[in-house]
Amino acid sequence: MNQYRILIDCADKKGLVFKISKLLFELELNILSNHEFVDSENQKFFMRSVVEGNIEEVSLREKLLEVLDDKVNLHLVSPIKKNIVLMVTKESHCLGDILIRYEAGELDANIVGVVSNYDILGPLVQKFNIPFFCVSHLELSRDEHEAKVLECLAQFKDIDYIVLAKYMRILTPTFVEAYKTKIVNIHHSFLPSFIGANPYKQAHERGVKIIGATAHFVTNDLDEGPIISQDVINVKHDHSWKDMQRSGRDVEKITLSRALKLVLEDRIFVHKNKTVIF
Amino acid sequence: MNQYRILIDCADKKGLVFKISKLLFELELNILSNHEFVDSENQKFFMRSVVEGNIEEVSLREKLLEVLDDKVNLHLVSPIKKNIVLMVTKESHCLGDILIRYEAGELDANIVGVVSNYDILGPLVQKFNIPFFCVSHLELSRDEHEAKVLECLAQFKDIDYIVLAKYMRILTPTFVEAYKTKIVNIHHSFLPSFIGANPYKQAHERGVKIIGATAHFVTNDLDEGPIISQDVINVKHDHSWKDMQRSGRDVEKITLSRALKLVLEDRIFVHKNKTVIF
Amino acid sequence: MNQYRILIDCADKKGLVFKISKLLFELELNILSNHEFVDSENQKFFMRSVVEGNIEEVSLREKLLEVLDDKVNLHLVSPIKKNIVLMVTKESHCLGDILIRYEAGELDANIVGVVSNYDILGPLVQKFNIPFFCVSHLELSRDEHEAKVLECLAQFKDIDYIVLAKYMRILTPTFVEAYKTKIVNIHHSFLPSFIGANPYKQAHERGVKIIGATAHFVTNDLDEGPIISQDVINVKHDHSWKDMQRSGRDVEKITLSRALKLVLEDRIFVHKNKTVIF
Amino acid sequence: MNQYRILIDCADKKGLVFKISKLLFELELNILSNHEFVDSENQKFFMRSVVEGNIEEVSLREKLLEVLDDKVNLHLVSPIKKNIVLMVTKESHCLGDILIRYEAGELDANIVGVVSNYDILGPLVQKFNIPFFCVSHLELSRDEHEAKVLECLAQFKDIDYIVLAKYMRILTPTFVEAYKTKIVNIHHSFLPSFIGANPYKQAHERGVKIIGATAHFVTNDLDEGPIISQDVINVKHDHSWKDMQRSGRDVEKITLSRALKLVLEDRIFVHKNKTVIF
Repeated sequence: MNQYRILIDCADKKGLVFKISKLLFELELNILSNHEFVDSENQKFFMRSVVEGNIEEVSLREKLLEVLDDKVNLHLVSPIKKNIVLMVTKESHCLGDILIRYEAGELDANIVGVVSNYDILGPLVQKFNIPFFCVSHLELSRDEHEAKVLECLAQFKDIDYIVLAKYMRILTPTFVEAYKTKIVNIHHSFLPSFIGANPYKQAHERGVKIIGATAHFVTNDLDEGPIISQDVINVKHDHSWKDMQRSGRDVEKITLSRALKLVLEDRIFVHKNKTVIF
Repeated sequence: MNQYRILIDCADKKGLVFKISKLLFELELNILSNHEFVDSENQKFFMRSVVEGNIEEVSLREKLLEVLDDKVNLHLVSPIKKNIVLMVTKESHCLGDILIRYEAGELDANIVGVVSNYDILGPLVQKFNIPFFCVSHLELSRDEHEAKVLECLAQFKDIDYIVLAKYMRILTPTFVEAYKTKIVNIHHSFLPSFIGANPYKQAHERGVKIIGATAHFVTNDLDEGPIISQDVINVKHDHSWKDMQRSGRDVEKITLSRALKLVLEDRIFVHKNKTVIF
Repeated sequence: MNQYRILIDCADKKGLVFKISKLLFELELNILSNHEFVDSENQKFFMRSVVEGNIEEVSLREKLLEVLDDKVNLHLVSPIKKNIVLMVTKESHCLGDILIRYEAGELDANIVGVVSNYDILGPLVQKFNIPFFCVSHLELSRDEHEAKVLECLAQFKDIDYIVLAKYMRILTPTFVEAYKTKIVNIHHSFLPSFIGANPYKQAHERGVKIIGATAHFVTNDLDEGPIISQDVINVKHDHSWKDMQRSGRDVEKITLSRALKLVLEDRIFVHKNKTVIF
Repeated sequence: MNQYRILIDCADKKGLVFKISKLLFELELNILSNHEFVDSENQKFFMRSVVEGNIEEVSLREKLLEVLDDKVNLHLVSPIKKNIVLMVTKESHCLGDILIRYEAGELDANIVGVVSNYDILGPLVQKFNIPFFCVSHLELSRDEHEAKVLECLAQFKDIDYIVLAKYMRILTPTFVEAYKTKIVNIHHSFLPSFIGANPYKQAHERGVKIIGATAHFVTNDLDEGPIISQDVINVKHDHSWKDMQRSGRDVEKITLSRALKLVLEDRIFVHKNKTVIF
């Protein structure tokens, strides 16, 4: 028995569910889960089915394409482990959270490497027998540094996702284009508030009573990509910005790990600048 | 164009979605929303579709029953306002929250009456031109009192739901049987903690850091019916039990109103002692 | 026995707590609660004590001023009901929440009147026997309209606070100056995100997973005054902006009522653009 | 300059704050933070001050005892790192969360060792160069096993706290007595719900919409010690109990780490079966 995740999105029209469910029935597949959503404002249809049966992936894809339109986006995958690269700078909370899950066999991915612009987190990564690459940005222009990072990444043949686990440098459009819709970031703030540098200092100065974190896909608009997951925590007047940062770190790591799980389970559609998540 | 909510639950088997979606396609119905869930532990299938088209309810029901099994539970309704009765005792927060929504035209229901065992809330109810009935329990046995309440309720021909908006008396099996799966209660606690009397005093004595509220259908097990909705709020050592009660009231009213909305929109399946909510 | 709330804020220096507690001891006052906070960044000291004893307010004030510096802000009040005016436009959820609490005797205030730029909410207000004033803005310039509103407010001798319970017009600096630090607003958004018009539409377009509300004092920076209280609620891709608005209303009303309670209990200090809340 | 945390709790009576603040003033100490709380129900006074100055601990203790009653509990400590032992069984999420904070220098403690009744987590612990001790319970009676654990713990001279980071065995009164008020546990449930074995299965069967975790001091009543910290997360009908467990783990680890921080900063008073936390 093989298991597949079928993700379909297209312009909404009558009979779509019928056609697909007819095919799945004829192929004698078990439907393990099925989610549909119609974005009526944009007349878009989204569907995610997890099915099980005696059919090869090539064959299932062919059959699906037969009943579906040209203009349909079909994403068909087996639930196999994806390859991910983590990128970090100096802080270990998000990285550590992912490593502990990885070690426990809880993360449905292979961490093929960790890339950093500092060597600080090398010892932590190496404890888990994962290759660590320090690509320092010192004395390099942004473009020079990024070229080196891209070169470093090029050694991995199939990267499914790059996870920015507190990588504190801005990526250029070149980089984003090279890994389009494959980069997940955690923003240390409740977007769209406090975009940019030191959001905890900004939040503290504004006197907010709640701080948060946002995990999102990276696009060329700084901190403006499609949001995957958000969470918040209460703060009070007696929190310094350092305290806010410390509390914020817990929110950041849980929010990023939650987003990563959704990504690895192929639960997310991106449409325009938004996500549909089943 | 008519709109219908189709709720189906039955033993899970292959081809169900196909058969139903085939019918909906042939009847040229628009599918406005569609949710499915398979409870794999109990091998149960649940489906809720909202559809739109040129077909009469009788006819749609007939067609659906043709393609479905005998053993399928079909619940087919038009989105018309339901008739509800509210039952209260002395506290006004849940009642008031419902009345304000009602007045704003936000509540998809007709409040046909409010029944109480005290006359305290009469003036508030009457401001909103809703019939208020005081059925005092004083000097009556539990059975005698309930007989009178049932008599009072009998005057309303079609009661879809009875909402216990802080009605502080225990209902007997006779009552529960008479309005089976039609009674919604708000429990002033985070079930299954603190079942029974004065949960805020219990919570305070236990020194909890979070209190909550639970909206549920009423069954014959005291405070043990299927849970519809729950919410919580943080408390601290400097909250007296009165403070906890005051904070708790906000959670109670929002949780009950949220549950009521789900009920009125026919979004809830009850299976065993649990709910499936789309 | 008289009860007093003593609020003191000043530049931090050694011996302050000693001097004050010495006085309270000598006056044989019971200390019912006592909170202190030192903002070490700004070297500011904040203290709120609730005390009980046989002393007149004038006399207590005099004694306190004797031991305290000239540069100390002293706010001494008895826990008597404050006079508040509510200002609204068309939506009833915040207004209704306050009215229900008022009717239940839960609100420590006299609502002396409700002012609106529409007559829509008049019938609701009048149910509760509270004077309602419609000051239409139609065919008036902003300044003309505000002059009329100020004239309307002038009839109430002692207004302690003006509560903007979804008053959808921007106040001019003249108005804000006239009721400095006395105006509380509920912003239908999780500030500082989505400042300005229709934040739910903005939030929906941004695809956020959490929406919120912010209660704050009004200053001349639009939606930028000191934050009193904030809360949030989760949303999903299947929420339209209307759904977000509906969910948001529950957060708005609870957040505003919570802020109002803090205000009425004299629990808030405003320093720079932030609040210290005990 | 030395820094001290002064914790005082005693029967409430007039003049306490005055006496203490007088002493602190005379000793020319800076008060960095000061919290007081009167439990009026039990007539108990609690105070925590953090002070700074040129005085030795012995001397400060002496001076404080001079002005305070015999019946006062005085807890005076310097903010030095405490020694903690972690106890675990098979799950790594709580342990891992603590280790990552430890590695980052974020944890104000020395982890002197990790004790487990299985050897599974040994490799993880050893990555961080912390001694790991496996004391298997196999083929031993509860008492025999516990005697061996106590023997193992005896090698550490000064254990300030024992943290049960998912240690899945019940401690006997002998053990609890040996480390009275020094044992912190994380309960995989929102106490007092679902006491005992497999709470996620219990929660799933009850159909709850929220699950939680509780960190508490261990007393001889199973899962009934004073609560330090609690948190919750929403769940839905489509969460299996395994899913609930997975989500629950995030709540467990954050709740335990938060409680541990409060413990290590000497912020907690235990009175009767409750905590006062500043």
